Amino acid sequence: MSFNRRKFLASAAAAPLLMAAGSAVRAQQPSPASDGNADHIAMLVYPGFTALDFMGPHHFLGGMPRAQIHVVTTQQDLSPVASDLGLLVQPTATMDTCPSDLSLIFVPGGTAGTVAAASDREVVAFVKDRASRARYVTSVCTGSLVLGAAGLLRGKRATSHWATLPLLAHFGGTPVSERVVRDGNLITGAGVSAGLDFGITVVEEMHGRMVAEAGVLISEYAPQPPIEGGTLETARPEIVALLQNSLTGFVEQARGLTIL
Amino acid sequence: MSFNRRKFLASAAAAPLLMAAGSAVRAQQPSPASDGNADHIAMLVYPGFTALDFMGPHHFLGGMPRAQIHVVTTQQDLSPVASDLGLLVQPTATMDTCPSDLSLIFVPGGTAGTVAAASDREVVAFVKDRASRARYVTSVCTGSLVLGAAGLLRGKRATSHWATLPLLAHFGGTPVSERVVRDGNLITGAGVSAGLDFGITVVEEMHGRMVAEAGVLISEYAPQPPIEGGTLETARPEIVALLQNSLTGFVEQARGLTIL
Repeated sequence: MSFNRRKFLASAAAAPLLMAAGSAVRAQQPSPASDGNADHIAMLVYPGFTALDFMGPHHFLGGMPRAQIHVVTTQQDLSPVASDLGLLVQPTATMDTCPSDLSLIFVPGGTAGTVAAASDREVVAFVKDRASRARYVTSVCTGSLVLGAAGLLRGKRATSHWATLPLLAHFGGTPVSERVVRDGNLITGAGVSAGLDFGITVVEEMHGRMVAEAGVLISEYAPQPPIEGGTLETARPEIVALLQNSLTGFVEQARGLTIL
Repeated sequence: MSFNRRKFLASAAAAPLLMAAGSAVRAQQPSPASDGNADHIAMLVYPGFTALDFMGPHHFLGGMPRAQIHVVTTQQDLSPVASDLGLLVQPTATMDTCPSDLSLIFVPGGTAGTVAAASDREVVAFVKDRASRARYVTSVCTGSLVLGAAGLLRGKRATSHWATLPLLAHFGGTPVSERVVRDGNLITGAGVSAGLDFGITVVEEMHGRMVAEAGVLISEYAPQPPIEGGTLETARPEIVALLQNSLTGFVEQARGLTIL
């Protein structure tokens, strides 16, 4: 067992139950903000974002050693941001106060709110700027539309929610129907619940297998969907038709997006 | 196809991508708060709660037709409540202003914060009171400790995070190592990520198979854990030992809880 692993094991003794165990390492180090050794992670929130798109990744990324999460609002001030279901999340930074150099930038999905964000030159310019220096550029669900509008999918393999997956080609990307897709420093997740698989993938990428395994066990991630049908292939045709119909308006809006 | 299903299909046309499709029904009805037909759902938040415990259920329950979610803080005012990872959620009600008659009460888990909540007579009295009239009494993860302290597990089969599952017996419950456990109107979920399986189970219970299937597909819930090992049985012994060791302090605290 290496020294680092011993240190990890020892310090994990203080770990809150539901943080990835590695976070305890952070707790015993000097403040990551002050020691210059933090992984600054910006997670965007905008009106109408889907909170579970955000929370799966937040749970795993927030537990990483040295991670400092910035919940970055696209609004001008730090007022709470409402998700598509009305959950209010308190941001910690605006696009102006978000650190300039990030280890990772993350964009969650949504519907009308996502189209609005991907159409907003200020938001897109922010994402493009931070992504240009970030170690990882990431999204879950329709958040990839925002990356697309920022020109970050050009020539890249990427995924999205099944409803918007084909649209990635409009931004020069290659749509890939997989749960988590990596191409260089671009890591994208499929719809909503794929944020958990995405989060674990990122933890393993940034901190290795052991920290990721600890995160999986502490989160009891052994899913047992009580109902099958989470993909277009496995859902009943009636349900597919229902949702495709219900999403027509949104998909049409999204089809109008372009690289800004 | 029944009339109700036609109505469901038609109204779902406006559904945001990531709400369970049935929520669109609600959007086209008079305000649920005013028509007396709302399902009032109280979801507790307390300092140190695990946000993903909360968000999986919130995502599915918040999308149900007629659901009105109350994010109920255990604090005295409506200031944001910090999760164990520091995510700030803005509550919508205090224990005083939470509706008296609920369709469902939900308690998320955590570690030290959960022990504090389960030791707080005011919190426990609130849970006990609302549960006495609620149609469903529910928790995910270590949230079952709070139900236990309120005497709500007596003679009931229930589950919890693996770390605290055996402790349910201290409250007169029968620990069951399953992902989602139902006994009468008590529905409990296992650790953290089980909140998604729990949420879908509740949607099916309250609104039937079709709404639940729509929720599964819209959320693309076809999990593919990139790493196995989300249970004590499937995790590497080294990881189990690490986490069991790290949780010793918390489990000792939890062992001291009693029915208040």
